[in-house]
Amino acid sequence: MFDLIALDADDTLWQNEKYYRLGRERFCDILRPYGLDGDLEAVADTVEIANLPHYGYGVMSFTLSLIEAAVDLTDGRLAAADVAAMLEMGKAMLRQEVELLDDAAEVVARLATTYPLMLITKGDLQHQWAKVRGSGLAGHFRHVEVVSDKTPEIYAGILRRHAVAPDRFLMVGNSMRSDILPVISLGAWAIHVTDHLTWAHEAVAAPPALRRHYHEVERLSQVPPLIDRLAAG
Amino acid sequence: MFDLIALDADDTLWQNEKYYRLGRERFCDILRPYGLDGDLEAVADTVEIANLPHYGYGVMSFTLSLIEAAVDLTDGRLAAADVAAMLEMGKAMLRQEVELLDDAAEVVARLATTYPLMLITKGDLQHQWAKVRGSGLAGHFRHVEVVSDKTPEIYAGILRRHAVAPDRFLMVGNSMRSDILPVISLGAWAIHVTDHLTWAHEAVAAPPALRRHYHEVERLSQVPPLIDRLAAG
Repeated sequence: MFDLIALDADDTLWQNEKYYRLGRERFCDILRPYGLDGDLEAVADTVEIANLPHYGYGVMSFTLSLIEAAVDLTDGRLAAADVAAMLEMGKAMLRQEVELLDDAAEVVARLATTYPLMLITKGDLQHQWAKVRGSGLAGHFRHVEVVSDKTPEIYAGILRRHAVAPDRFLMVGNSMRSDILPVISLGAWAIHVTDHLTWAHEAVAAPPALRRHYHEVERLSQVPPLIDRLAAG
Repeated sequence: MFDLIALDADDTLWQNEKYYRLGRERFCDILRPYGLDGDLEAVADTVEIANLPHYGYGVMSFTLSLIEAAVDLTDGRLAAADVAAMLEMGKAMLRQEVELLDDAAEVVARLATTYPLMLITKGDLQHQWAKVRGSGLAGHFRHVEVVSDKTPEIYAGILRRHAVAPDRFLMVGNSMRSDILPVISLGAWAIHVTDHLTWAHEAVAAPPALRRHYHEVERLSQVPPLIDRLAAG
């Protein structure tokens, strides 16, 4: 049924958005003494999204964007000690130990007994590889692809390089924008795991026309039985 | 003679270190009004090297490290406007158009007529891919690998994935630390292009015992004739 099954990593196999949420809270705490009005997190989010074309995804991008947002918001009053606190927060995120999500180890081990597995993750190259190594799951994956973004072109390039036809490829992930839409737009299969924390930027709607190869489960543990049913036709 | 020839990109095919040097000069200019003593560039370099295990290589790593060094050096007096200037400098580096080195286009086109070529480059994923696309050279490369670091393990992984024996692989680059030593330590071939600007951190000595498959040229244009001589035995 499938020649290759790929899984997303951040917020599909291990915690990620949780640390970004804590980072945004810390950003607000750092700025509290400046007595600013308005939704500080929303400003930080806007700066971060505007910077994606330059910085891409990941903790370094996040840290640089928070510092930029803080400089803007404080109108030049930002103290150097608060810049240092944001730098330190970013480093703590990079040093954070990998925390696997429930069932991730079992699900990956089970799928690996039947299918060649690929991990496809976007973000800082150095950090993503450190997390792959730290996860203890690397041995189950035949291939690991750290990509700058998850566009249809990038997925198409991966399928071409590995000589896999789209209708023999399945992607599993928590992000409609990154793991699901670009994959089903190529005619490949996708399983959306919906109960995991997801950055709001990643939440978009799937057009009904593309839902033929699209499936939804709440929990990662439901993925292997669903794949068994799909394979049984 | 060779099943695969790989080339480094930054400072082998296009300008890179030049912009980092300008960045370090700009860093010193920004800090001049603080009346600091000592070698500011050396401090920035030390911070950057200490941060490599967390941040890896590239412009985001450089920008974060310069801001950290500036906060440290000014003992908390750093003005927010100067933080903003450093962020802007980093973005300008990311937006900088690719400037090919002399002969790079001709040398790559010529080698591509005879050998499968691979580009191997380290740094920010997003930025490196933008440079590959902006270089106009992408069509000559059968494979592009953006890696977090250039260690023997990472080269060995590339050779394994592409099923190339070390003694059938040649790497061309300007950095002894990144392009030459790890490659010849695997028993593969390397050509060091010596007249290009190189970050001091990348300059190390090659032990004589490893020099069997090692060759040195001053200019990139000397690479194709040297490969012809090697192939002729």
